[in-house]
Amino acid sequence: MGAATREGGIGSADPLLIIAASEVDSNLYYATHFLAPDPFIFLEVGGKTLLLMSDLELDRAKAESRVDEVRAFSVYEEKAKARWTRPHLIDTLSILLEECGVHALTVPSNFPVEYADRLREKGVSVAPKPEPLFPQRLIKREEEVQAIEESQRHTEAALEAALQLLRESAVKGDRVMWKAEVVTAELLKKVINVTLMERECVAQHTIVAPGIQGCDPHNRGSGPIRPNESIVFDIFPRSGVTRYFADMTRTVVKGRASDELKRLYDAVLAAQERGIELIRDGVSGQMVHQEVTAVMEQRGYHTGMVDGRMQGFFHGTGHGVGLDIHEPPRISKTDNTLQAGQVVTVEPGLYYLRWGAVRIEDMVLVESNGCKNLTRFPKFLELV
Amino acid sequence: MGAATREGGIGSADPLLIIAASEVDSNLYYATHFLAPDPFIFLEVGGKTLLLMSDLELDRAKAESRVDEVRAFSVYEEKAKARWTRPHLIDTLSILLEECGVHALTVPSNFPVEYADRLREKGVSVAPKPEPLFPQRLIKREEEVQAIEESQRHTEAALEAALQLLRESAVKGDRVMWKAEVVTAELLKKVINVTLMERECVAQHTIVAPGIQGCDPHNRGSGPIRPNESIVFDIFPRSGVTRYFADMTRTVVKGRASDELKRLYDAVLAAQERGIELIRDGVSGQMVHQEVTAVMEQRGYHTGMVDGRMQGFFHGTGHGVGLDIHEPPRISKTDNTLQAGQVVTVEPGLYYLRWGAVRIEDMVLVESNGCKNLTRFPKFLELV
Repeated sequence: MGAATREGGIGSADPLLIIAASEVDSNLYYATHFLAPDPFIFLEVGGKTLLLMSDLELDRAKAESRVDEVRAFSVYEEKAKARWTRPHLIDTLSILLEECGVHALTVPSNFPVEYADRLREKGVSVAPKPEPLFPQRLIKREEEVQAIEESQRHTEAALEAALQLLRESAVKGDRVMWKAEVVTAELLKKVINVTLMERECVAQHTIVAPGIQGCDPHNRGSGPIRPNESIVFDIFPRSGVTRYFADMTRTVVKGRASDELKRLYDAVLAAQERGIELIRDGVSGQMVHQEVTAVMEQRGYHTGMVDGRMQGFFHGTGHGVGLDIHEPPRISKTDNTLQAGQVVTVEPGLYYLRWGAVRIEDMVLVESNGCKNLTRFPKFLELV
Repeated sequence: MGAATREGGIGSADPLLIIAASEVDSNLYYATHFLAPDPFIFLEVGGKTLLLMSDLELDRAKAESRVDEVRAFSVYEEKAKARWTRPHLIDTLSILLEECGVHALTVPSNFPVEYADRLREKGVSVAPKPEPLFPQRLIKREEEVQAIEESQRHTEAALEAALQLLRESAVKGDRVMWKAEVVTAELLKKVINVTLMERECVAQHTIVAPGIQGCDPHNRGSGPIRPNESIVFDIFPRSGVTRYFADMTRTVVKGRASDELKRLYDAVLAAQERGIELIRDGVSGQMVHQEVTAVMEQRGYHTGMVDGRMQGFFHGTGHGVGLDIHEPPRISKTDNTLQAGQVVTVEPGLYYLRWGAVRIEDMVLVESNGCKNLTRFPKFLELV
């Protein structure tokens, strides 16, 4: 039985075709457990899964992939050359489809239009299936939750290493000094990313955003760390071993936070706690987001354009985490129902140019009667 | 003038639409110089480039992207809600297309078929353009060559760190010991990847393949390093600063190589030297590949299936390197003409289960009268 079928199928009668590089296409990796940098062909037909691989990847695909059969692309290419002078990839594929008697295909919504057009020209019907292609991908099996938790432990070790450096640093005027070195966002990111790489995790866009840089939630941060201002740490590495991500955000101050910043922090923390309290199987993500937003609104923190910049809380409360860093479901303005087995972030934030930025993010596993927090890292604002 | 236009355009009369996450779509990054983890909309119409961004990315896109204009997706979404109860992304986009009077679009060949179908349903014609979408992406500007060279210097530092560890190690029976530790492929990969991360380069699938593991060219390698057998190091990190890749392979032996392995190494080296000698503007990549193959054939190294495994030389001689690790042109069986300004690898290899694996890879810049080797790392087989 095929991998996709084994996992619960895609709920479609037509055979499934994916052509992608599994390195950047998590559906294909999920279906095959085979990682390759260049596009390859996956076909599920009659409950059997099949790969067409280049000679370069043939042996490795046979050894590593979880499909029923791996065939050589070159064998089909030879057959195609009997019909076409310079067969296109889709010409070669069409030989396989003919052999399998396939005239209609389901493809992922992100299937390349060029390939779809060429298949349709050959009389094969091509129907894109909206995401999630594999709904079961959102419901994490036990080993997937474990993998996410492992990535999370590494994430916590990396943040701890950065905060330890900050603890060991001294405030000198408007600078923070570590030994003879000015502490910068770049230095802290390096500590985080190197700690993660030592643990075989790849962190690509770690955020260490000091002061008002943090008010742009995806600003990765740069330059000197200043005492007494907010620093947003958002760390979301992928394990090079399991391919699963983790995601955590903490906001700290080296020195003393202003009363305004403390109130901001408390509001975000209360909002996050409210969100975590509400999350359970069957709940509406939209409702959770509204409630989280309301906690901050009630404390007087409003959202909107001020001086041409969005300020307040202008992103979603959370998102699914797994083989992709951003997966369904969303806990946001759009309507999503949470289901037991999903792993989602809860990450409200408040961003004001006057006071600074605060975001606090945990990852939780949705359960039938609540949720389990997969994040262990403590929450505190001031780091003296 | 738009970014894509400024770089030379795509040679199409119709406006260009890309919808992708620039994190995994190098064409979009090339066109915008804006890196985002979630899909966003890029439109080039009338020589002007435009982004539609989520509120979350709006400010950062305005600050960082190299486009003429950044607009809020949410503004168009509000307009769409006046017409549709739950507007799809393509509904929202269609408002913008109407405003711009666009009825026909060029899209990349990997444009998602679901979006293409929805646009076509609205009467917008959608024509995928085969790769390369931006032909000028293949011809590296001076700063792009510099970025690749920087990544290459980091790559060389990382390999040097791993080889230094091997030099400091001692052969004890069939093991190689570093201090009290058994030297493994995993340990050497960690040294390489951590060294690269310290230099803000991300190495995702570094290969350190000892013995016959190397006979599968994409086997990343595992387990103890044995004395006197081939170890293939293939290192291809991306700079987190510039986004440009480098790519280098070396094959070494800790201890003494057998005469057979030495002959294998010499054949691969001679083939590589022949390839580098031939590369220049206007040359056929196919011819270079044939000549490289011939050098090894002439020494009696044949390619084909032996005991159900491909052995000999069964991959291309090289590929372009830039914002993607594998770009056109290919130096392989397929017909590609090399052009001045392209950066390509030259990486012949020989793989025999009896003797081991050898691959040697440099990156060169194609020039009008030859090529410039961007790789400085020495080539030697034995590491005593």
